[in-house]
Amino acid sequence: MRDVRMRGFREQTTVERALEVLEQRIRRLGDEPVPIARAAGRVTAERVLARASVPHFARAAMDGYALAGEATSGAAAGAPVELALVGASFPGRPHAGALLLGEAVRITTGAPVPVGADAVLMAEHAEEAAGPDGAAVLRVRAPVPAGKHVAPIGEDVIEGAEVVPAGRRLRPQDVGVLASTGVAEVRAVRRPSVRILITGDELLPPGSAPGGACIVDANSLVLSALARRDGVEDVEVAYVPDRREAVRSALAAAGEDVVLVSGGSSVGPEDHAPLVLAELGEVAVHGVAMRPAKPAGFGFLAGERPVFLLPGNPVSCLCAYEFFAGPSIRALGGLPRAWPHRRRRCVVAREIASLPGRVDYVRVRVEGDRVFPIATSGASILSSTTRADGVVIVRAEDAAVGEGAEVEVLLYDA
Amino acid sequence: MRDVRMRGFREQTTVERALEVLEQRIRRLGDEPVPIARAAGRVTAERVLARASVPHFARAAMDGYALAGEATSGAAAGAPVELALVGASFPGRPHAGALLLGEAVRITTGAPVPVGADAVLMAEHAEEAAGPDGAAVLRVRAPVPAGKHVAPIGEDVIEGAEVVPAGRRLRPQDVGVLASTGVAEVRAVRRPSVRILITGDELLPPGSAPGGACIVDANSLVLSALARRDGVEDVEVAYVPDRREAVRSALAAAGEDVVLVSGGSSVGPEDHAPLVLAELGEVAVHGVAMRPAKPAGFGFLAGERPVFLLPGNPVSCLCAYEFFAGPSIRALGGLPRAWPHRRRRCVVAREIASLPGRVDYVRVRVEGDRVFPIATSGASILSSTTRADGVVIVRAEDAAVGEGAEVEVLLYDA
Repeated sequence: MRDVRMRGFREQTTVERALEVLEQRIRRLGDEPVPIARAAGRVTAERVLARASVPHFARAAMDGYALAGEATSGAAAGAPVELALVGASFPGRPHAGALLLGEAVRITTGAPVPVGADAVLMAEHAEEAAGPDGAAVLRVRAPVPAGKHVAPIGEDVIEGAEVVPAGRRLRPQDVGVLASTGVAEVRAVRRPSVRILITGDELLPPGSAPGGACIVDANSLVLSALARRDGVEDVEVAYVPDRREAVRSALAAAGEDVVLVSGGSSVGPEDHAPLVLAELGEVAVHGVAMRPAKPAGFGFLAGERPVFLLPGNPVSCLCAYEFFAGPSIRALGGLPRAWPHRRRRCVVAREIASLPGRVDYVRVRVEGDRVFPIATSGASILSSTTRADGVVIVRAEDAAVGEGAEVEVLLYDA
Repeated sequence: MRDVRMRGFREQTTVERALEVLEQRIRRLGDEPVPIARAAGRVTAERVLARASVPHFARAAMDGYALAGEATSGAAAGAPVELALVGASFPGRPHAGALLLGEAVRITTGAPVPVGADAVLMAEHAEEAAGPDGAAVLRVRAPVPAGKHVAPIGEDVIEGAEVVPAGRRLRPQDVGVLASTGVAEVRAVRRPSVRILITGDELLPPGSAPGGACIVDANSLVLSALARRDGVEDVEVAYVPDRREAVRSALAAAGEDVVLVSGGSSVGPEDHAPLVLAELGEVAVHGVAMRPAKPAGFGFLAGERPVFLLPGNPVSCLCAYEFFAGPSIRALGGLPRAWPHRRRRCVVAREIASLPGRVDYVRVRVEGDRVFPIATSGASILSSTTRADGVVIVRAEDAAVGEGAEVEVLLYDA
């Protein structure tokens, strides 16, 4: 491990190469059982099969009367067929027993169609009356074929069929269907746990008033919210003094799946994080050909738990998270590595400055389908990201992007 | 209130008209204070101003040496200027006291620039040495102008300036900037609370195995997940028997901002919800010219708390939520009414059937940029929505959408 402190980065890794390393090293986490009532939004670790058919009985697909279609043959408005009305079948309260050929029961949508019935006649094609002996009869004024308005067993889902594939982030309707088929829990990919180590003696926790030589930490809030966006539930934040032993203890004690270290990653005398990571594990990348976030890096503890070295400058921190930590956290949780932002094609209305050989993360405003770079690009100007509508990534092979060029904007608003 | 039970809907409200009613009647909820650490994703009720400038002191924008630029005038590699190295300024641990003209201190990025200094010289343009008297000196090999690598007070944000406007759904970086400026809490729009009443004697809670005449309720899970997507945190689910008094008690007891009633909204003898709502409050719309979800409706309790009557058929329930409840819940919480789905323009690869005079919610598969309607369109076939990639809305004025037409697909995946 070369000590780059106070000397600057002699070499920088390309963004492309850094992402290749993460692609090779970061694998999906294991899985865990999740009750179906809490499974929305989770990613399935294996395909899920229906435990029962839906419906598991023949059910009425219409309000009306259940009967044997055969018994209505020849019925017409002028020549109604009379059936004995012998009961009713409601959802959850079915008619007890089987129907004979000349019998009918009232039925409502979703109720079991009794044995002996094979069709549902719509209410408007019949009327109820009292027969000569006072018993209820149904006057049927139109024939109905067998099978009409009856949903057969398994019409929606057949027992044993695949309801959702492996790797599906469960949508609202997916958990509904799974519950319908009697699935009580699914195997879901574990969601990565994240520890955020905020280094910097000058930092006060959010909610404080800045004062003296102390400023208020923004990165813990930004990183927590980004991690939650990327599927993380458990986020721990710890503040760590700018002393090597303190950084070392904090990193050694972190048992989470992912560690995000904010600050102390650059080349100043107080930048302990890269050296400490090299001692405790491995630094894979440190110094990336990009702007902002050149001092970004990452490595691994115990060969597999990633530690991301994020510059303390707030825009660099956001940028380094988006390029390296975000895709990795999503991949650990079984989500796509791609940036989750909505995308929009726009035309460059004012030249976007860049230099070949580095990737630029350029905050932009969007007006209609025109895009303007935000004037200030200082890595410390976090307010540039609140004024921006999104970001344009300028590739390493490109120099400035000229007025009139078409670019893709990654929008900040969800 | 006309009792439509067992007689069908004589008239149907258009989707357009139903949405107009909601547009007029549904207003944003009030606001509440939210600590900045929990404010990500919340919607601001008013613009938020910076409580302090960022930075609130002149800070180093580079690692190096703080000094008066004037003192480096004429410095060159062959003719270094020697300054007295009198200390160091680190973030949170500033140099005590002011600098004289011939003095310099080590400084790291973000540290306060001492009084008397007005520039930061990059480390590579100087070297430290011991002077003839043993005191530390700095040999400066390049001049640096006043102001160089110094971020002035307020460079990022000026005290009192607007950081975010009213109505902003706070992004990760927004809460970071707000915290930096000393904001401890924001006034955020209240998130609507939702009660879901699941009616149906045949329904077992999710996690159960279907059996006998009983099926497993899917709608509570689908509706809960949709409401959470739309910004709701508090969701209560209650199961209500198919008896008028039970439905009445459950509706009367609901104190939430929004009530979603699943089932019992149609024209069967067990469909008590519309009548009960008319007794306890007001039914504004019941029966909509759409497919599925024709029996959908809504009304209000106490003149302002919306109650949505959602058909029990799972696809109809999903569809009615998306058309009526979703936009209303978002509007209550200060979010845009528009559907939140990602959109994509596709070409119809197989005719989409519809009829003029009704709006159709058509589940579709997407292959490349081609879109296929899912064959089965039964309102009870919830699995059609798990097989679908999204939905195409066919407007009331359109009949079938022919092969080759371009349509917008609302994608189910976030």
